[in-house]
Amino acid sequence: MRFIIQRDHLLQSVQDVMKAVTSRTTIPILTGIKIVATEDGVTLTGSDSDISIESFIPKEEQGDEIVEVKRAGSIVLQARFFSEIVKKLPTDTVEIDAGDNLQTVIRSGKSEFNLNGLDADEYPHLPQLAEENVFRIPTDLLKALVRQTVFAVSTSETRPILTGVNWKVEDEQLICIATDSHRLALRKAAVQTSGTGTYNVVIPGKSLTELSKILDDSTETVEIVITENQVLFKAKHLLFFSRLLEGNYPDTGKLIPAESKTDVILNTKEFLHSIDRASLLAKEGRNNVVKLSTIEEKAVEISSNTPEIGKVTEEVQCQLVNGGELSISFNAKYMMDALKALEGSEIKISFTGAMRPFVIRPINDETTLQLIVPVRTY
Amino acid sequence: MRFIIQRDHLLQSVQDVMKAVTSRTTIPILTGIKIVATEDGVTLTGSDSDISIESFIPKEEQGDEIVEVKRAGSIVLQARFFSEIVKKLPTDTVEIDAGDNLQTVIRSGKSEFNLNGLDADEYPHLPQLAEENVFRIPTDLLKALVRQTVFAVSTSETRPILTGVNWKVEDEQLICIATDSHRLALRKAAVQTSGTGTYNVVIPGKSLTELSKILDDSTETVEIVITENQVLFKAKHLLFFSRLLEGNYPDTGKLIPAESKTDVILNTKEFLHSIDRASLLAKEGRNNVVKLSTIEEKAVEISSNTPEIGKVTEEVQCQLVNGGELSISFNAKYMMDALKALEGSEIKISFTGAMRPFVIRPINDETTLQLIVPVRTY
Repeated sequence: MRFIIQRDHLLQSVQDVMKAVTSRTTIPILTGIKIVATEDGVTLTGSDSDISIESFIPKEEQGDEIVEVKRAGSIVLQARFFSEIVKKLPTDTVEIDAGDNLQTVIRSGKSEFNLNGLDADEYPHLPQLAEENVFRIPTDLLKALVRQTVFAVSTSETRPILTGVNWKVEDEQLICIATDSHRLALRKAAVQTSGTGTYNVVIPGKSLTELSKILDDSTETVEIVITENQVLFKAKHLLFFSRLLEGNYPDTGKLIPAESKTDVILNTKEFLHSIDRASLLAKEGRNNVVKLSTIEEKAVEISSNTPEIGKVTEEVQCQLVNGGELSISFNAKYMMDALKALEGSEIKISFTGAMRPFVIRPINDETTLQLIVPVRTY
Repeated sequence: MRFIIQRDHLLQSVQDVMKAVTSRTTIPILTGIKIVATEDGVTLTGSDSDISIESFIPKEEQGDEIVEVKRAGSIVLQARFFSEIVKKLPTDTVEIDAGDNLQTVIRSGKSEFNLNGLDADEYPHLPQLAEENVFRIPTDLLKALVRQTVFAVSTSETRPILTGVNWKVEDEQLICIATDSHRLALRKAAVQTSGTGTYNVVIPGKSLTELSKILDDSTETVEIVITENQVLFKAKHLLFFSRLLEGNYPDTGKLIPAESKTDVILNTKEFLHSIDRASLLAKEGRNNVVKLSTIEEKAVEISSNTPEIGKVTEEVQCQLVNGGELSISFNAKYMMDALKALEGSEIKISFTGAMRPFVIRPINDETTLQLIVPVRTY
């Protein structure tokens, strides 16, 4: 294998596939990046066996030559060294030359690296997915869906299914739900489906987070292929595979209260900053709990008390306080996560009582909601 | 104590004195910041008993009112909470009100914090230094002196004296020397002295690093007061105290070779990048060793070899290669540290043999040098 490539394109691809590579793997060859050169271009692959990423660098793009392949072939190079080397090479083009004995020479300017490669034939094959059932979603919407839900997955392995996000597709609508049983995030979106178009799967939170990092902020369409135990995201020159979590996701529909007894409408940012301040002292305490109390027609009071350090109170103006008086305690971090995930400058919080889960929604937006279970303080 | 203060000024001062505060102290009150309000303004103090920092916020500056002191007094507040609170307060002014029972109220907009304070009378007194013997140096030069030497101090406590930088003042010249016995950094500068004007002290490296972070990049003069066991840096509205290290600093004069057998002149940046690349694979090996060899009249070869990973070679153009052929191995990190510390685009390296320490100097600059002890590779 021998090719000459523009360093910037190589670096971008290396950094993309690196997202799947981990040094903590029991399969030594997975610490490497697979490089395959054909007459069409160069393909890089990284994998930790849960997530696999394939990035293709075409021979040319918009008439611009990116790769000149002198001799087709393949090699696996240690990901950590290869990525560092590519990052620091002195010139804009790089020559990569893998000989018969797996010795690989990387040349750039007057710099020459000799790396011991591994045999690409030993690299695990990526899953082959039947692509009959595909649905499509714009990249920026996909990233929003992930951002607004994935933070709420459980970080504990006691219920592994909760470390993933539940994706349900039905009637050209995708519903994404994440919960760690203390809070829940939900986001809906319209999608274009083909084939049967009905799915109910759980995608590991970590996979969605890594996917989000790789995708750019374009409106280009991502194709999504779901099989029994794999999901594949296909973007331009990029394939992102993730295994799915096994098991049934709990039915969360019943958790979300249909009615409310007290409604509050506030400015998202002002409320977020006020919670942030109240949480400064509460963080030190056992569980970062702050209290919200309705105090008059158009204001609520946010407070927290950590006797050994001190206490804080703050009044936050509301656009509306509707319904019965209320005093409720909750985890400040959950509230801040929820507020950061919501779009829109005004939010509505709907309470059904001091001991019942409450719902936060942007006003005039039915596609997304955040639910938080309150904390008992007695 | 009660005063109203501009938040930005308070925040800057809090962040300055925080540099001296550590949570790992055996003296509980030192986890706090001392706040003293008088009719002239507000003084903040932080200390870990090695370093003490005092920042003064004047009543007004250039006709602009910064502090309005309503009632003089003092209090000590937990540094970690106080600094976080000040950073996140909602409005541009802050009221701080410490009552008789040490309860302190911090008000800003509709936000009100109540903190449990500590009695300022219990806070240790800062050392009182006789200020007869003072020398003066511009802030930017002081920062350069620190930057060009402090990285070379020892991080090991086996010879505590080497964790400091040796400062010698004689005949209106300051010489700063740091060494960890594998490399040495030296920088000279002219200073204005008064009084006897002769000193030979060792300042903890950590103190100089923290000092550097606080000082801005101005040309204003810093006054330096040295006593038997303390040094005091006086900048505008800022006092920075550090204890000195006890013991005799080794005589480093004999280490620096007076003559050379091979001289090389190179571009600092090109050489630095080349060492950086050669070190990519060497870092994994035992001691990050790279090799420099003269290969022809106007070039050297940088190389490293880590058999289990691979090897790298690179030719670097030189302006001059003078004297006998040479092949020498050294720690790449020491070389990169030295090159980053030197000013000037061209440097001269003077070798006296493969087993002897060598010296790196900017060309046409006698005020600074870096010395590195080579590594035996057989």
